Amino acid sequence: MRWNELDAEECSIARTLSVVGDRWTLLVLRECFLRVRRFDQFQERLKITRHVLANRLKKLVDEGVLQKVAYQERPERFEYRLTDKGLDLYPVMMSLVHWGDVHMAGPDGPPILHRHKTCNHVFEPVVTCSQCHEPLDARQVDLMPGKKTA
Amino acid sequence: MRWNELDAEECSIARTLSVVGDRWTLLVLRECFLRVRRFDQFQERLKITRHVLANRLKKLVDEGVLQKVAYQERPERFEYRLTDKGLDLYPVMMSLVHWGDVHMAGPDGPPILHRHKTCNHVFEPVVTCSQCHEPLDARQVDLMPGKKTA
Repeated sequence: MRWNELDAEECSIARTLSVVGDRWTLLVLRECFLRVRRFDQFQERLKITRHVLANRLKKLVDEGVLQKVAYQERPERFEYRLTDKGLDLYPVMMSLVHWGDVHMAGPDGPPILHRHKTCNHVFEPVVTCSQCHEPLDARQVDLMPGKKTA
Repeated sequence: MRWNELDAEECSIARTLSVVGDRWTLLVLRECFLRVRRFDQFQERLKITRHVLANRLKKLVDEGVLQKVAYQERPERFEYRLTDKGLDLYPVMMSLVHWGDVHMAGPDGPPILHRHKTCNHVFEPVVTCSQCHEPLDARQVDLMPGKKTA
């Protein structure tokens, strides 16, 4: 299936990008994966205005990507934690970081290395096929209409 | 390593997002992976203004993600093709699409299925560790300073 058989609107990526397709939102999410949770911490690290930060956090809570959890009662204070839906964005985040490490890092190499606790090695993320477990290449993937259009 | 040991500016993701962290840019790239190549095709499919489209295409060419290739001489006409650097964004694109399929698709399921030509199966992308080949989970990844900060 090629582009001319596929309606641009069909792709759930357009809906996905309405949730996460914004630079500040993605930077807020990166901080969440680094376990940053409190408003002032986000603000200090990202040098973002309170207005923009509050807007992005509210949107992520409304979309069920983050949840707001009280950590103190008087005065009431909240922190922001990734939900399961939010944790599922990890492959997106890892893929972005890896692309940056390969193509945007300077001569000193990537600023951060990732260690897999399970095997205790520094690793790179590899996107594989759920069926044959081989690494994926764009040229080896074909598109087919899903249920809706079948 | 946790957030408070890590400078937000250190992460190459900030630089990465300055290239691809924009909804229109990501939608243009999705079209590129569907093999859309010509200005008018992008415009027709995305319902984007010529000004915004020209701006995003120019930026992607300047960043080496797309290359502009003449496909006709008189009058000279160009098309936009993914470079190797651009093709390397495939895991980002697949991860975004997969998250959308899981979390944003309606009751009819994903609008598009992906078939792996290599094994001939409909598949889902799985992000794995390059060392032990197990699927990655955010909770099992630790961060370490790279060369620059070592």
